[in-house]
Amino acid sequence: MTVQVENVVDRTAFARVYAEVQQFYARHMYLLDSGAAREWAETFTPDGVFAAPSAPQPIVGRAALTAGVEQAHAELRDKGEQHRHLLLSVDVAPQQDGSLVVRSYAQIIATPRDGAPRLHLMCVTRDLLVRDADGRLLVRHRRVTRDDRA
Amino acid sequence: MTVQVENVVDRTAFARVYAEVQQFYARHMYLLDSGAAREWAETFTPDGVFAAPSAPQPIVGRAALTAGVEQAHAELRDKGEQHRHLLLSVDVAPQQDGSLVVRSYAQIIATPRDGAPRLHLMCVTRDLLVRDADGRLLVRHRRVTRDDRA
Amino acid sequence: MTVQVENVVDRTAFARVYAEVQQFYARHMYLLDSGAAREWAETFTPDGVFAAPSAPQPIVGRAALTAGVEQAHAELRDKGEQHRHLLLSVDVAPQQDGSLVVRSYAQIIATPRDGAPRLHLMCVTRDLLVRDADGRLLVRHRRVTRDDRA
Repeated sequence: MTVQVENVVDRTAFARVYAEVQQFYARHMYLLDSGAAREWAETFTPDGVFAAPSAPQPIVGRAALTAGVEQAHAELRDKGEQHRHLLLSVDVAPQQDGSLVVRSYAQIIATPRDGAPRLHLMCVTRDLLVRDADGRLLVRHRRVTRDDRA
Repeated sequence: MTVQVENVVDRTAFARVYAEVQQFYARHMYLLDSGAAREWAETFTPDGVFAAPSAPQPIVGRAALTAGVEQAHAELRDKGEQHRHLLLSVDVAPQQDGSLVVRSYAQIIATPRDGAPRLHLMCVTRDLLVRDADGRLLVRHRRVTRDDRA
Repeated sequence: MTVQVENVVDRTAFARVYAEVQQFYARHMYLLDSGAAREWAETFTPDGVFAAPSAPQPIVGRAALTAGVEQAHAELRDKGEQHRHLLLSVDVAPQQDGSLVVRSYAQIIATPRDGAPRLHLMCVTRDLLVRDADGRLLVRHRRVTRDDRA
């Protein structure tokens, strides 16, 4: 009986964190796709690391993350293209210390103005999510690998 | 301590509503894609509004919503094309009055008979969801914007 | 009042199972896409059935499921192509006996090495999920239909 109650408690805790992660990613990626560079960077820890396949070396810290998005967004705006980042098939592994190891499939959809959308990139994203003092999730570390690269 | 308990209560409530919204959309869009026009329209409030980019003005009320889907589905059937609407990256903002403001990325996938599927449209969907007397979610207002339009 | 409490209990139970199914699929499909054939087959019941559109008749049992994935993965490796299976728009219907009838939209994304990803197939997946003695979800029966086939 105790086991069953504990199981329900554990599974409820998992449901809470699973919904929270999905909601976090929805907002996080909407900020990115909207070009809200600073707000997006603030969803990383101050020392957050983003190891992106397009960058020669990891981007570290909110100032660098902000600058990277500002530049990318300006290029897309000049090109007249809207990108959307979707983190799907989310696998959440809660850790003993309260952090979350999260793996997801990332689709990047690109839509040119007056044109058809295309699946631009298919990637796997591996995040380490932690909580700030108020309990909010933040990305401490992100590593993205592209399916088109060996 | 009280704060922490309240936080868990709040986060459990959010998980409930987040799962419910995803389940609602899964069924809602399956009805649409199956051409179940009336059943789909009944997932809107009686005075539900759908501001679609393809329509010159908002569609209002279940009769008009039903008629719109019946026509669209007949056209697709004649064309031999199956459409799928996926609402992904769902961002749910519960409001004080119990309604839900929901923003999601919408993919419309089109598959011709014996042909390859294509990403037909990429959109952003903004819904106001409310509950009927039995507590079931309904769309009161939907606004869709296409990524290929400025 | 009692009704409302029961409603909250029921909705919390649904949130638990909904998160669990999404997490199950994320891991299940990552195993498949990684070519972890045996581990993937073990997420079916020992007598699990997979009625796939590409197979002339249903694949039954873990040994056959393993062999099927090993062959498919070897072919993809030779071709230099990475496939990703995403089960989205998940509709979960809990049954009286504790099993789950789950319908989802399945996207199969194919990415050739050094090439652009493409939406390879769009399908509907209908699963019967059951629990093993430890309460873990397993696929007892899967039926997949392709949108490009009548």
